[in-house]
Amino acid sequence: MKTYQSMSRTELEQLQVQLQQQYKEFQGKGLKLDMSRGKPSKEQLDLSMEMMNVLNSQSILTCEEGTDCRNYGCLDGIREAKELLGAISEVPAENIIIYGNSSLNVMYDSISRSMTHGVMGNTPWCKLPNVKFLCPVPGYDRHFAITEHFGIEMINIPMTPTGPDMDLVEQYVNNDETVKGIWCVPKYSNPQGITYSDETVRRFANLKPAAKDFRIYWDNAYSVHHLYPDKQDFCLEILAECKKAGNEDIVYKFTSTSKISFPGSGVAAVAASENNLKDIKKSLTLQTIGHDKLNQLRHVRFFKNLDGIHAHMMKHADILRPKFEAVLDTLDRELGGLGIASWNRPLGGYFISFDSMDNCAKAIVQKAKEAGVVMTGAGATFPYGKDPHDSNIRIAPSFPTLEELKVAAELFVLCVKLVSIEKILETK
Amino acid sequence: MKTYQSMSRTELEQLQVQLQQQYKEFQGKGLKLDMSRGKPSKEQLDLSMEMMNVLNSQSILTCEEGTDCRNYGCLDGIREAKELLGAISEVPAENIIIYGNSSLNVMYDSISRSMTHGVMGNTPWCKLPNVKFLCPVPGYDRHFAITEHFGIEMINIPMTPTGPDMDLVEQYVNNDETVKGIWCVPKYSNPQGITYSDETVRRFANLKPAAKDFRIYWDNAYSVHHLYPDKQDFCLEILAECKKAGNEDIVYKFTSTSKISFPGSGVAAVAASENNLKDIKKSLTLQTIGHDKLNQLRHVRFFKNLDGIHAHMMKHADILRPKFEAVLDTLDRELGGLGIASWNRPLGGYFISFDSMDNCAKAIVQKAKEAGVVMTGAGATFPYGKDPHDSNIRIAPSFPTLEELKVAAELFVLCVKLVSIEKILETK
Repeated sequence: MKTYQSMSRTELEQLQVQLQQQYKEFQGKGLKLDMSRGKPSKEQLDLSMEMMNVLNSQSILTCEEGTDCRNYGCLDGIREAKELLGAISEVPAENIIIYGNSSLNVMYDSISRSMTHGVMGNTPWCKLPNVKFLCPVPGYDRHFAITEHFGIEMINIPMTPTGPDMDLVEQYVNNDETVKGIWCVPKYSNPQGITYSDETVRRFANLKPAAKDFRIYWDNAYSVHHLYPDKQDFCLEILAECKKAGNEDIVYKFTSTSKISFPGSGVAAVAASENNLKDIKKSLTLQTIGHDKLNQLRHVRFFKNLDGIHAHMMKHADILRPKFEAVLDTLDRELGGLGIASWNRPLGGYFISFDSMDNCAKAIVQKAKEAGVVMTGAGATFPYGKDPHDSNIRIAPSFPTLEELKVAAELFVLCVKLVSIEKILETK
Repeated sequence: MKTYQSMSRTELEQLQVQLQQQYKEFQGKGLKLDMSRGKPSKEQLDLSMEMMNVLNSQSILTCEEGTDCRNYGCLDGIREAKELLGAISEVPAENIIIYGNSSLNVMYDSISRSMTHGVMGNTPWCKLPNVKFLCPVPGYDRHFAITEHFGIEMINIPMTPTGPDMDLVEQYVNNDETVKGIWCVPKYSNPQGITYSDETVRRFANLKPAAKDFRIYWDNAYSVHHLYPDKQDFCLEILAECKKAGNEDIVYKFTSTSKISFPGSGVAAVAASENNLKDIKKSLTLQTIGHDKLNQLRHVRFFKNLDGIHAHMMKHADILRPKFEAVLDTLDRELGGLGIASWNRPLGGYFISFDSMDNCAKAIVQKAKEAGVVMTGAGATFPYGKDPHDSNIRIAPSFPTLEELKVAAELFVLCVKLVSIEKILETK
């Protein structure tokens, strides 16, 4: 296998003609495929259909503590939902507040509350001249969109195979009191599928923030979202590590069942220290009389416990795994050894992170779009949509069918090859 | 019937001894009744149990526009839910955004968003030295709690039988640009059960606010919540009136099915002009990927349309009406003509508003509590919990059973009599 860089101008031009011909054929197919978002497929949604039967007009709708789940009340969730979401989050039920259907909304509210009311008695951020967040990159576009919306300055922190560059994190957090937070997806990270090492988690837990109101925004979105029954990542539980370090107020953990049951109708939760929960409830008690307890009950009665969750997640894995493998096989087969791209091989989560040569990602995504395949916008994995190398592309294999995905992957590698050749020819 | 004021000291003291004896007997009963919140009773919740059956594992869970309601998406709600909540709000579906289970949460978010991002391009309120809200009194304690939480100064506006004192409202709104909002419960108001007159609604629609970002917070909580099939209040639809007045951006209307289906698991909505909806969606699109669409579908398939809602509300009325009448009959029989209290006779809503002699409300509520009947805290119907006359008490007859309610009402009138006598004796 010859790398593209080592090929002569003539060889590249001949290859280009061939590939352009193939690309035209794809354009003729009238494709309309979407690999842009981490959206479960219909087959995955069907896995939870029995959940629609667990509550009916004959059901007893009181929770264990005796509250009628149909009525007002129970601000922080029913006990058994705290147990279940606590188990998913690996924290005691005492450390949980149950929310509505969206953990994104919980994160948004956390930032919004910090802006208007501050964190645990500290100055509201809207009264400060500067507020900064650290953003491990590549990362989750919706995290960055929230911080940008609130005018918070974002600082890129490079990801490494063991998590964010912790030297840089410590340098910022421990010295700059305008740094108030960091966005983390610690397990099967979005988009790279990286799981933070034990050392990384311990260094997080042992941060000595210059700002009293600094918090780690630990978005545990993929905690039980493995692709394989036998090969799985493990991530140290941060809240316990923070407690050991005498630092238990430093982290908010977010989780939800969105990619476990139904993305539109799941249950979200935050896990945090007693002090943080007390602070959060000061606002929450004015914001709502309580979230949807019938849906909490529905989830508890369907999944029962963490074993039920794990068994269910293996059904998701059986649907997702062939899709990930189809994309990865195509990448390996078509791009392996060409020296024009690299990608990860995650054991869980929802994404494959792909890196092209510098200054090619936008053009690749555009080319795919022109042949009917929508990818996540290039740059989306960086704050302000600005990938300094224009090289990262997030591939989301979950939503299309396996057949569609194979076609989309073929087109994608073709676009990568074409754009790479153009780029190399420019400089030859 | 002699008024208490016209009785001699000796007569009052003799009566006091009798009443104290009766009060002691009540204390011996070990009552534990709650008339504090507008909480539907178990019987009312049972009316919607069939809603638990409309979706099951065999159901088609796509909405009319083809979206799979189980998945992510559909930020502002499914079309048919907009139709249904639009019908309840008397506005076109185009003017609706569907939310989660709590209209209180929608109101909280509206204030929070105005603090951090301003209203339609105007300065965020957190950057202003002063922000004021007008608060018709007596009013809803949770409205006042939200404004207080955000440090907004509240100004009392007396209620009249036709709505808030509009001379005062116009004077403030049209001249003071620090006045950014007014809380309104226009139909069957909380707690007085007053419905704004046509003239009041038109004067609202024709306000000429000094502040461009002034909004009317029109909490249409009881729009279809009648107590009688034949005697009902009507309230002019404000959004249409505002449009006629060239003022369509001036109002946010809030509604929910909390007191129609299940208080904990209803569907909430905001209705507003196109400009306002666009402004709201700028934040909403970052806050969530979408609210619970399965619950929207569940509501639509159960109620079908506005006729379905009205028929259902008459079942609620049949349960609520005897409770209201039991309390009102007791008030009439025991307190009528004594010159120590007045109260309203609402045709809908959830409350009876009761006014004692000045400086008696706190003592009455305390006395009732000491015999096992919890009322809404005296003062709660005023900003900062401060009733300048200490006279208003909100009675919520919905939650206790009819039997319990009769006992509670007997105790209540006894407390009113006892406290009134004490007060009169002080000044005789």
